[in-house]
Amino acid sequence: MNHTIDVSNINIRTDLAIEEVGNDKKLNYVNEKTIGNIKVTCISIDDTNKDKFMKKNGKYITIEFEDATDYNNSKEVEDVFIKELKNVLQIYNINDDSTCLIIGLGNEKSTPDCLGPITINNIIVTNHYYELGINVEDGFRSVAAIKTSTMGQTGIETFDIIKAIVNEIKPDFVIVIDALKASSVDRVNKTIQITDAGINPGSGIGNTRKEISKELLGIPVIAVGVPTVVDTITIVNDSINYITNYYSYMKNNIDNPKEKLKIVRTNIDKSNVNQIDKKDLFGMIGTLNDDETKKFISEVLLPVGYNMIVTPKDIDFVVDKLANIIGNGINNALHKNVTNL
Amino acid sequence: MNHTIDVSNINIRTDLAIEEVGNDKKLNYVNEKTIGNIKVTCISIDDTNKDKFMKKNGKYITIEFEDATDYNNSKEVEDVFIKELKNVLQIYNINDDSTCLIIGLGNEKSTPDCLGPITINNIIVTNHYYELGINVEDGFRSVAAIKTSTMGQTGIETFDIIKAIVNEIKPDFVIVIDALKASSVDRVNKTIQITDAGINPGSGIGNTRKEISKELLGIPVIAVGVPTVVDTITIVNDSINYITNYYSYMKNNIDNPKEKLKIVRTNIDKSNVNQIDKKDLFGMIGTLNDDETKKFISEVLLPVGYNMIVTPKDIDFVVDKLANIIGNGINNALHKNVTNL
Amino acid sequence: MNHTIDVSNINIRTDLAIEEVGNDKKLNYVNEKTIGNIKVTCISIDDTNKDKFMKKNGKYITIEFEDATDYNNSKEVEDVFIKELKNVLQIYNINDDSTCLIIGLGNEKSTPDCLGPITINNIIVTNHYYELGINVEDGFRSVAAIKTSTMGQTGIETFDIIKAIVNEIKPDFVIVIDALKASSVDRVNKTIQITDAGINPGSGIGNTRKEISKELLGIPVIAVGVPTVVDTITIVNDSINYITNYYSYMKNNIDNPKEKLKIVRTNIDKSNVNQIDKKDLFGMIGTLNDDETKKFISEVLLPVGYNMIVTPKDIDFVVDKLANIIGNGINNALHKNVTNL
Amino acid sequence: MNHTIDVSNINIRTDLAIEEVGNDKKLNYVNEKTIGNIKVTCISIDDTNKDKFMKKNGKYITIEFEDATDYNNSKEVEDVFIKELKNVLQIYNINDDSTCLIIGLGNEKSTPDCLGPITINNIIVTNHYYELGINVEDGFRSVAAIKTSTMGQTGIETFDIIKAIVNEIKPDFVIVIDALKASSVDRVNKTIQITDAGINPGSGIGNTRKEISKELLGIPVIAVGVPTVVDTITIVNDSINYITNYYSYMKNNIDNPKEKLKIVRTNIDKSNVNQIDKKDLFGMIGTLNDDETKKFISEVLLPVGYNMIVTPKDIDFVVDKLANIIGNGINNALHKNVTNL
Repeated sequence: MNHTIDVSNINIRTDLAIEEVGNDKKLNYVNEKTIGNIKVTCISIDDTNKDKFMKKNGKYITIEFEDATDYNNSKEVEDVFIKELKNVLQIYNINDDSTCLIIGLGNEKSTPDCLGPITINNIIVTNHYYELGINVEDGFRSVAAIKTSTMGQTGIETFDIIKAIVNEIKPDFVIVIDALKASSVDRVNKTIQITDAGINPGSGIGNTRKEISKELLGIPVIAVGVPTVVDTITIVNDSINYITNYYSYMKNNIDNPKEKLKIVRTNIDKSNVNQIDKKDLFGMIGTLNDDETKKFISEVLLPVGYNMIVTPKDIDFVVDKLANIIGNGINNALHKNVTNL
Repeated sequence: MNHTIDVSNINIRTDLAIEEVGNDKKLNYVNEKTIGNIKVTCISIDDTNKDKFMKKNGKYITIEFEDATDYNNSKEVEDVFIKELKNVLQIYNINDDSTCLIIGLGNEKSTPDCLGPITINNIIVTNHYYELGINVEDGFRSVAAIKTSTMGQTGIETFDIIKAIVNEIKPDFVIVIDALKASSVDRVNKTIQITDAGINPGSGIGNTRKEISKELLGIPVIAVGVPTVVDTITIVNDSINYITNYYSYMKNNIDNPKEKLKIVRTNIDKSNVNQIDKKDLFGMIGTLNDDETKKFISEVLLPVGYNMIVTPKDIDFVVDKLANIIGNGINNALHKNVTNL
Repeated sequence: MNHTIDVSNINIRTDLAIEEVGNDKKLNYVNEKTIGNIKVTCISIDDTNKDKFMKKNGKYITIEFEDATDYNNSKEVEDVFIKELKNVLQIYNINDDSTCLIIGLGNEKSTPDCLGPITINNIIVTNHYYELGINVEDGFRSVAAIKTSTMGQTGIETFDIIKAIVNEIKPDFVIVIDALKASSVDRVNKTIQITDAGINPGSGIGNTRKEISKELLGIPVIAVGVPTVVDTITIVNDSINYITNYYSYMKNNIDNPKEKLKIVRTNIDKSNVNQIDKKDLFGMIGTLNDDETKKFISEVLLPVGYNMIVTPKDIDFVVDKLANIIGNGINNALHKNVTNL
Repeated sequence: MNHTIDVSNINIRTDLAIEEVGNDKKLNYVNEKTIGNIKVTCISIDDTNKDKFMKKNGKYITIEFEDATDYNNSKEVEDVFIKELKNVLQIYNINDDSTCLIIGLGNEKSTPDCLGPITINNIIVTNHYYELGINVEDGFRSVAAIKTSTMGQTGIETFDIIKAIVNEIKPDFVIVIDALKASSVDRVNKTIQITDAGINPGSGIGNTRKEISKELLGIPVIAVGVPTVVDTITIVNDSINYITNYYSYMKNNIDNPKEKLKIVRTNIDKSNVNQIDKKDLFGMIGTLNDDETKKFISEVLLPVGYNMIVTPKDIDFVVDKLANIIGNGINNALHKNVTNL
């Protein structure tokens, strides 16, 4: 029986802590609340529970919403984002005079990876006024902002660029913005994650690089990200579940001609997948659970260089709105004098 | 036994005629040649063979190459492209004075869909000189160029914009450029297709719209495209084949410890997939052939709005190079005085 | 005495009606009001006064403000803009169901000329939903939007593109957005003009083309513009006045050493220029008034192809903010359901 | 007589050494040659002649050409540029293995200031392959590339960003690319200057910042620039000369009615300006020579914040071509294996 599939040694990565918690959210380190149509989940990873995650210790705040492109919705999301970002600043006793460097990671020329740099376009930059001795009214702090581009564009490890500039201008803390990778299509462009645990540049497009973190930079690092892509492994696994649910449904309704015309919105809630149907349909693959399936697909596809990303068709439109929410939100959280009218 | 999978009524679309020919290329309507490292295939679809294709009658010239981002390669590709484009112009007796409208389809703000508009940036436009009575030296013709944007950006059917402008400026022929969708990852960014059969805007990102064709515009329409994306259906099907081949390989080598460390470049050549392994591994799905699998996946995923595209991580870099090749190539083919030094 | 300068036959163009009114604003066809820090002037040109203007008959509403890049200011400007735009819609009995085509004129790739196209990026487009029979909730109307690019980019007269598309999709009215040219540096980026008298594409960068107007399109044309450039003629004339005022000031203060260190904010208010100093300093040129000077400079510079534009150093930053104000403002004015929270 | 104009203490800056040499080019430190239609001038500033320049000691190589947008011309310009750049590399004994950091100064979002960053888009970057231990074929060297953006965008002194990154990655030499400011409209977009004397970021748009130079960075700094703008002072002075020449011409031809219809291409060659006419026309200003006029205008306009730039209308089109020439040229000069086919 040496032909069974062994996936015990493979790790599947998602950038979102919430995707590692799974369905069991009644845990003492998970804190949920709902504000209007927005759900906020705070996950605290520490030494007591870190074995359950492939993430570093830290707080992971997830803001989930339906549609950031609607004007009214977007204002609500922005309000929640401002509040949560301010909370994180308080944890580190960051006061109104602390200076900040904001860093946009990613490739401005590639729409699925441009969230970081286009958010930087929306940031109110003030550091040079303080440097040049120009009077700045009260209610502002010193903020600098850089776009690092990607290692493929600069030839330089992104961490090294950041470390060099942090050493040069010595900010009190940094905020890093990047496009992330989700492990579920349903979260793409519908989640903002704020964390104090640092970030790996390029993770959104699957090229993990040296991490940007408090440990390595010596100052608080707040990372803000939105999943804009999923990987091909996710798509294949999600499809297997969709297909099974569809098959189960059709099998049960096949004698009912009216049902054949119906467009089925299959449900991929894991608890709903009929395991017998799945095995019939997918054989040995059908006997694997989600994690196992992904690990197996990953083992096969990664080495052969499946160098693709999966992103929504309207990514340009949505990313633009998200960069406004995050840019305006950061301006609000950092400067007392900027108000979200 | 009404639980078997019936896929007879579903069509899977690829924008590339060459992907519908399959492995049997020794057909009288397929003409292959090799120029250096570049392969050129001309497929002629007419009333005698149109049943075998989901494409309109016409000539489909496919230029296949390995890497358009290398400078030397790109010059070779450009030379072949110029030659093939000139051949198509000759079929329609397009002479040196015929006026041309060049149309870039797609969304300039979305990297996977921007080939059309960024190619337009490289086009030498001359029509206004003729309109304004400004002297143009010999060796040029009248060329106008427009970017139509997408229906989601304008709110207008792309065909209607084109028809209106063609009626207004009355060119002798049009060249249309668009990003296409392939049904195989291996072709993405490695193929240029030239056809006189017209094109459906938005097909590259899966939103097929009213076709741009000679039948509907009344003048020759030459479409130039490059596949920059595949759809999720393709990714899932390719993965099933990769996975099966990998499983077959591992099963046969599992007792050889050295092999376990080897990174396996699995082969997805259809003739190589072990059908028994595929059934073991994938159950009923494993009994379907490629077309059947894709049709089945398509039936399931399309109705539930799987609104994603799959594109390479370095799409911004490659598309830029391809737009140079196509833009310069069109300038060369249209104006005697423009030479490819 | 045939060596005097004769400028009677030369016209200097500004795109702003308010710049042709001059200082005498107590005219029955000029209506001024102030809303907060914003001044709104409505000028009505008709058969009774048209000889005083180099403009077509129509209403010209000018919204003047200090700084559109400040968030609070920009919201005030947007509110006033919405109100004034709605007023113009009422003049033409444009009701909530009337369909609209919005046109962005200019060159998206040239920062001083990109106001039109980047405003289009902010427009909510709905026409395709109505065309495709997709349900749209109440409180919206059908809106389509196009960027025409410039004649140098397309090779096609911009008017011809617009006429063709208007004939095709038959909107009830159009809104046209363009960068304008001012005749005073002080107005650049600090004025929005709304007019029902039409517009000439390219006037902002001095290449006047066929006008977009109700007379030529057969439907109401509302033009919205912001002066983003001045021409070299304006700069030279403004400089002559600055220089004269400075000379007058220095002459009167030259024995006062402290004054020599003072940075002088000279005043170019016409009534302040010392005419004798001006003649001393500038000879025969100094005897001309503003209009005469500009006409003379124009006669000299235009034929020799002084093909330059003058624009602020921070044009990219300001134009982005203005495009937000105008884009959001149009969305608000056109759709009941869009509110300026 | 204390009302005369004293300009002895004011300096007018041009970024081009060639504009400070004036008409007297038969100097032992000026070396001219002509290659086809291209003129190359090398000016060596050292302790023996530095008093005549407002420039640092160093070599200033100026490549002058007519039209970089024509394909054939652009290839000739590129060939000359490659040759001259290689010459400068030889002066510093930079060998084929020396590592290089290429820096694009300026604002990518402002067309007149985007030469630096868009040239970076054309650079072949290889440093990360060496860093990651990926095999690179012979004939390449290690090249990294960054865009610094402007101080207004980052809030950080550009020099500080560069110094930090140079200290981090320790290249053997740097190449810096920037848009420059000319003091004559005729040179705009028609000159490439290469110098080993360093560069001041932002000088193209008049915001001079801390210099990037060998003295301050400790490694050779080769600066490559193209004048894309002139300042308002230049425009006013050039206009005074144009106007005088025009006046002289008209005065002499005023009795000849046919001449009145003629479009006059006035000549601003300084030796041609009739000094008596200039005084009649411009009074005291007319008695100043070019430098004095500019200094006087500068004294008046600079303090009052005349914060404008003057640029050609087709700047977007030309800058794109120049960025190709410089980017390809640098790739050729740095990598043996890149050839200019």
